[in-house]
Amino acid sequence: MTHNVAILGASGYTGAELVRIIATHPRLRVAALSADRKAGQAMGAVFPHLRHLDLPTLTTIDEIDFSQIELVFCALPHGLSQALVKDLPRSVKVVDLGADFRLRDPAAYKKWYGLDHAAVELQPEAVYGLTEFYRKQIKGARLVAGTGCNAATVQFALRPLIEAALIDLDDIVCDLKNGISGAGRSLKENMLFAERSTDVSGYSQGGKHRHLGEFDQEFSLLAGRPVEIIFTPHLVPINRGILASCNVKGDPKAIHAALAARYAEEPFIVVLPFGEAPGMGHVMGSNFCHIGVVGDRKPGRALVVSTLDNLNKGSSGQAIQNANLMLGLPETEGLMLAPVFP
Amino acid sequence: MTHNVAILGASGYTGAELVRIIATHPRLRVAALSADRKAGQAMGAVFPHLRHLDLPTLTTIDEIDFSQIELVFCALPHGLSQALVKDLPRSVKVVDLGADFRLRDPAAYKKWYGLDHAAVELQPEAVYGLTEFYRKQIKGARLVAGTGCNAATVQFALRPLIEAALIDLDDIVCDLKNGISGAGRSLKENMLFAERSTDVSGYSQGGKHRHLGEFDQEFSLLAGRPVEIIFTPHLVPINRGILASCNVKGDPKAIHAALAARYAEEPFIVVLPFGEAPGMGHVMGSNFCHIGVVGDRKPGRALVVSTLDNLNKGSSGQAIQNANLMLGLPETEGLMLAPVFP
Amino acid sequence: MTHNVAILGASGYTGAELVRIIATHPRLRVAALSADRKAGQAMGAVFPHLRHLDLPTLTTIDEIDFSQIELVFCALPHGLSQALVKDLPRSVKVVDLGADFRLRDPAAYKKWYGLDHAAVELQPEAVYGLTEFYRKQIKGARLVAGTGCNAATVQFALRPLIEAALIDLDDIVCDLKNGISGAGRSLKENMLFAERSTDVSGYSQGGKHRHLGEFDQEFSLLAGRPVEIIFTPHLVPINRGILASCNVKGDPKAIHAALAARYAEEPFIVVLPFGEAPGMGHVMGSNFCHIGVVGDRKPGRALVVSTLDNLNKGSSGQAIQNANLMLGLPETEGLMLAPVFP
Amino acid sequence: MTHNVAILGASGYTGAELVRIIATHPRLRVAALSADRKAGQAMGAVFPHLRHLDLPTLTTIDEIDFSQIELVFCALPHGLSQALVKDLPRSVKVVDLGADFRLRDPAAYKKWYGLDHAAVELQPEAVYGLTEFYRKQIKGARLVAGTGCNAATVQFALRPLIEAALIDLDDIVCDLKNGISGAGRSLKENMLFAERSTDVSGYSQGGKHRHLGEFDQEFSLLAGRPVEIIFTPHLVPINRGILASCNVKGDPKAIHAALAARYAEEPFIVVLPFGEAPGMGHVMGSNFCHIGVVGDRKPGRALVVSTLDNLNKGSSGQAIQNANLMLGLPETEGLMLAPVFP
Repeated sequence: MTHNVAILGASGYTGAELVRIIATHPRLRVAALSADRKAGQAMGAVFPHLRHLDLPTLTTIDEIDFSQIELVFCALPHGLSQALVKDLPRSVKVVDLGADFRLRDPAAYKKWYGLDHAAVELQPEAVYGLTEFYRKQIKGARLVAGTGCNAATVQFALRPLIEAALIDLDDIVCDLKNGISGAGRSLKENMLFAERSTDVSGYSQGGKHRHLGEFDQEFSLLAGRPVEIIFTPHLVPINRGILASCNVKGDPKAIHAALAARYAEEPFIVVLPFGEAPGMGHVMGSNFCHIGVVGDRKPGRALVVSTLDNLNKGSSGQAIQNANLMLGLPETEGLMLAPVFP
Repeated sequence: MTHNVAILGASGYTGAELVRIIATHPRLRVAALSADRKAGQAMGAVFPHLRHLDLPTLTTIDEIDFSQIELVFCALPHGLSQALVKDLPRSVKVVDLGADFRLRDPAAYKKWYGLDHAAVELQPEAVYGLTEFYRKQIKGARLVAGTGCNAATVQFALRPLIEAALIDLDDIVCDLKNGISGAGRSLKENMLFAERSTDVSGYSQGGKHRHLGEFDQEFSLLAGRPVEIIFTPHLVPINRGILASCNVKGDPKAIHAALAARYAEEPFIVVLPFGEAPGMGHVMGSNFCHIGVVGDRKPGRALVVSTLDNLNKGSSGQAIQNANLMLGLPETEGLMLAPVFP
Repeated sequence: MTHNVAILGASGYTGAELVRIIATHPRLRVAALSADRKAGQAMGAVFPHLRHLDLPTLTTIDEIDFSQIELVFCALPHGLSQALVKDLPRSVKVVDLGADFRLRDPAAYKKWYGLDHAAVELQPEAVYGLTEFYRKQIKGARLVAGTGCNAATVQFALRPLIEAALIDLDDIVCDLKNGISGAGRSLKENMLFAERSTDVSGYSQGGKHRHLGEFDQEFSLLAGRPVEIIFTPHLVPINRGILASCNVKGDPKAIHAALAARYAEEPFIVVLPFGEAPGMGHVMGSNFCHIGVVGDRKPGRALVVSTLDNLNKGSSGQAIQNANLMLGLPETEGLMLAPVFP
Repeated sequence: MTHNVAILGASGYTGAELVRIIATHPRLRVAALSADRKAGQAMGAVFPHLRHLDLPTLTTIDEIDFSQIELVFCALPHGLSQALVKDLPRSVKVVDLGADFRLRDPAAYKKWYGLDHAAVELQPEAVYGLTEFYRKQIKGARLVAGTGCNAATVQFALRPLIEAALIDLDDIVCDLKNGISGAGRSLKENMLFAERSTDVSGYSQGGKHRHLGEFDQEFSLLAGRPVEIIFTPHLVPINRGILASCNVKGDPKAIHAALAARYAEEPFIVVLPFGEAPGMGHVMGSNFCHIGVVGDRKPGRALVVSTLDNLNKGSSGQAIQNANLMLGLPETEGLMLAPVFP
C-alpha cells in the first residue's frame, strides 16, 4: 500500500531533501507540493536535480485537496505551521520540520522565537520528534515536531550521559561545525559563495541560538533539574553536515560504554570504537549519525563527538523516519541510503 | 533471488561507490571484497562512510572462492584485469571498470596505455559498456568493458549527432571540467587539498588523454571514417562530476531534436529544453546524465553540454547497470537514487 | 608625493580590492569612499578584512569634496558612471571599472547593455584600459575605461595572434572557467554557497555574454574585418580567478613564439615554456597573468590558455596600473604583490 | 641596506610563504634557497605562483655559502634544525620555523617529539618567537624559535588573561578549526582533496597534539603553576587559517578589557568590539590576528575567539617579523599586506 503525502514549503532545501528520499521510498508517494512564491512552477525547474522525477507542480497551500493526503510534511519557515496545522482535517497526520511545536511551554516558544504561540491547544498533543528517544509516542502521534538539526546532533551525544548521570551537568561545552545548507535557501549577503567559501566563523554564540530552547527543555527534563549547556556553533564551508565536539567532565570509558550500550540496537546510530572520533564527510546524504568518544590526558575529561547530515538525519530523514512509524511502516523504510563519499 | 558479486580493488573510490550503490540494491549481495595492500582490514576502516554495513573483510584476490561468485566487478588499476580475467572460471561474469578491454584493437591499447595486451584472445568477446548504445550485446555478454568516465560523458552528447551526420566531424571541440575523485585515491602531490582547492588547470591536453583511444574507436566506427576530436580536460575543485562543453558546427535545433528523440525512452538520460544547459551539481551521487543544447549567435554553431557523476554514471553506476542486464535483472534496479543537492 | 583618490562603489568586491591594494601602495591615499546604501558605515564593518586600516567612513557620492581628489575609481554598477563622470570637475582623472565607457560605439553599448549611452560626448576621450596594449594613450588620458575581466583574460591570449594573422579568425572557441566573485556581492539565489559549492555550470552562453561587445570591437579593429569568437563561460567554485582555454587553428610553435616575443618585456604577463599550461591557483591575489600554449595531436591546432585574478588583474589591479600611468607614477608601483598559494 | 637571507626547506608551504612575503619586502633579499629532494630545480617550477620572481635555483644545504648570509630561515621538518644550526657560523642569525627549539626543557622536547635533543647546548640561547610577548629578547637574539601556528593563535587569546588571573586555569577548553595547509605538502591519503573537501574531523585530540608542549610551558610559566588546557583541533576544508574558540570561566567584560588594553598598540593584533567574534576568512594572506570576546548567557562564562593565517602570522609572517627585529629593521617592514577577501 502506498501512502499519499504532501510537502508544504517544497522550494526549500529540506523540502527538496524529502522529495529526494521519497524518490526511492517504496511506500510513500508525493501527492502534492506547495511553495507559495513559486506556485505554478515545476519542481524540476526549482530543483533541477529532481528533474527526472514525475512530480506534481508546485501550488499554493490552498490549492491542496487534503482529503487525498494521509500525512503532511511541513517544511515552512518558523511561525507558519501553528496556524496551518490547526486548519487541517484531523484525519491528516503531520510531521512539522520547523520549530513551531518543539517547545512544550508556549512561554519558552515566545522567549526563543519572539512570537506568541498560535496553536496552544495543539501543543500538548505534539510529540518531540527525536525518534530514538520518543519512538513509542511517535508511533501513536498525529502531530510530530521535528527537532532542530543541531539539537538532534548534540542530544544523540549527550542524552544517555545525562540520563545516567555520568557527566557534570554544569560544565558541558559543545562546539559545533555546521554546513551552510542549514541556513536555507533565502538570500543573505553572508551566505553568498564568495563570503563563505574561505571562512569559518561563529554565529548565535554566547547562548543566543534558538536550539538552546530544545536543549534546556530536554536536558532539564532528563536530569530532573535545570541544565544549561555552553553551545558554540560555527559555519564551515561545506554544504551538508554538523559535527558536534562536546567537552564533558566524566569518565571517558564509562561514557563510551553507556553510548555503545544505548545505541547497540539502533539502525541509524553508529558508535565508534573507544578513542576514535567520526568525520562529517562520512554521513553525507544519509540518515546515519556517527558518535565517538576520546579520553583526554587530563583525567575525568572526555570529548564526545557526534556527526550527522543536517538536511537528512537532522531534518528530512528524521521526518521520514517518524512518518514511517506514524504510518505503521518499518522504521528504516527508504532510509538505508548509504552516505556519499567522496 | 540474490546474486553474489565480488569487487576486486575495493579500496579505491569506484570500489567504494559500487558498495554504496549495492547497499540499497535489492538483488545484489557483496560476497567478497579484495584490496591487496589493505587485505585483512575491515571495509568500514578503509571507508568509514560504509561502517554501518555488514561487509566481508578485505582479502587478497587469491583468497576469493570464485565458485560462489556469479559476477565480478574489477575496479583494478589499468593493466591488471587482463591477466586476472583470463584466470577466472568461465562461469563468472565480469564487468571491468578499468581500461583493459575498452579498445578492440590491441595495437590501440598499446598506443594509449603503453602495455602489451595480456589477454588478446579475450578481447573479441568484450562488449563496450556504454549501456544506452550496446544494451543488446551487454545482455548476452560474459565480459563487459566499462567506459572511461570522460568517454561516457562526451559520447552521450555526440553519438546521436555523429550517427545522424548532423555535425562537422572535423571541428568538434570538447572542453571538460572534471571532479577530483577521477584521479583516484593514490598519493600525488598535485592531488592534495591545498594544491587543488583554489585551482583550475588542464591535464593531458593537446591530444594526450587516454580516453581519446575510446573516442577515436567509437566515433570513427559510427562515422565510417576517421574522426578525431579536440579534447581539453580540466580539474575543478569538486569531488564528483564531469561537465563536457562540446562546441560543434551544425544546426542547434536539429541537434537538440536528435538528442531529445534518441533519449526519449532512456531512464537515465535527461535532455533539457532547447536553450538550457545543465549543471554538474545536479547529478551528483546518481546514475543520471543531463544534456542541454544552446545555439550560438553565430549561425550553424551549437554548444552541447552533458554532465554526469564520474564515480557513478561514469563508472560504478554504469557497471551496475550493465550487471543488471547481464544477470537478467531490470536495468534500473538499485540505480534510481536521486542526485544529492545541495 | 601622495595622490588622493576616491573610490565610488566601495562596498563591492572591486572596491574592496582597490582598498586592499592601495593599503600597501606607497603613493596613493584613499581620501574618500562612497557606497550609497551603506553610507555612514565604517569600511571595516562592511569588509572586516580591512578593519586594521585607518579609512574614511563610507559616504554618499554627494558628500565627497572632489576638489581634494586627484583621481576617482568608479566601481559602480553598470549605467551609473556615465552621468556621474559628466558632473565631475574636469580636473579629476577617472578610472571607470564598469562597462559604461568600454564600447566606442554608443549603439554597441545600447545593444549589449540595453541602455542609451548617457554621456555620448565623453565617450571619444575614453581610452580602453587594457594597459599592455593602450599604454601610451592611457598615460595622457583623463578617462580610462577598465576592461571586462573576461575580456582582459582572452585578449591577453589572442591579441598578438590576431594582429599577426597567425590564427583562423572564423574558428576561435574560448571556454572560460570563472571564479564566483565576478558575480559581485549582490544577492542572487544561484550565488549562494549551497548552490555553487558543488556545481559547475555555464552562464550567458551562446553569444549572449556582454563582454562579447568588447571582443567584437577590439578583435575586429585588430583584424581589420569583423571577428566573432565563440565564448563559453562557466562558473567554478572558487572565489577568484578566470582561466580561458582558447582553441584556435594555427601553428602552435608560431603562436607560442609570438606571445613570448610580445610579452617579453611586460612586467605582469608571464608566458610559460611551450607545452605548459598555467593554473588559475597560481595568480590569485595578484596583478599577474600567466599564459601557456599547448599543441594538439591534430596538426594546425593549438590551445592557448591564459589566467588571471578577475578582481585584481581583471579589474582593480588593472585600474591601479592605469592610475599609476595617469598620475605619472611607475607602472608597477604597489602592484608587485606575489600571488597567494596555497 | 639589503640583508641577504637563506631559506632552508624552501619546497614546503612555509618556505614558499617566506618567499612570497619577501618578494615585496624592501630590505630582504633571498640569496639562497635549499630543498634537498628538489635541488637543481627552479623555485618557479616547484611553486609556479612565484615564477615571475628572479630567485636562486634550489640547492642542497651543503651548497650554500653561509659567509654571504646574514640570516637563515629554517623551514625544515622537525628534528633537522638542531644539528644544522650547531654547524652554522656564529655570525649567522637563525629563525627556526620548526619545533626544534621551542621547548626549553629537552625532556619536554623528547616527550612531545620522541627525539633526543641534538643541540642541548644551544637551547638556552633560543628565544621563543611569539613576537608580541618576547619582543625585547628577540631583538638581541641570535636564535629565535618560531612558535607552533596553533600555539600562537591560542596564546594571543589567552596570555593576557592568564597573566592577569582573569580566568579559571583549570577549565580552559579550546576548540580549533584548522586550514589544511598546516599539514604541509607531504603525501598523506587523508590530505587528498577528495578526502578533505567535504569533511570536518578532529586530529590529535585528547591531549595528544604536540603544540601542547608549548602551551604547558608558556601558560605554566605565566601562571606560576602547572596549567593544562583542553585542546581540540579540527581540520576544515580551507587552505589557510586557524580559528580558536576558547571557552573560559571569567568575567567577559573584564576579559575583553584586558585584551583590548594589552593589544592597543600592537600593529598586527586587532581586538574587536565586545560581543563580536572574528572570521577566519578576514585574515587570509596576512600577518594580522583578529580577536573577539562574547559573553555567555551563563554568568561568568566567556568565549574568546582568535584567528590568524597559519602560514603567515602563524609561521612565515611571524618569522619575518622576528627577523626584522633581529636585523634592526622596523618590525612591520614588508608585513602590512592586507588580507585577501573574498
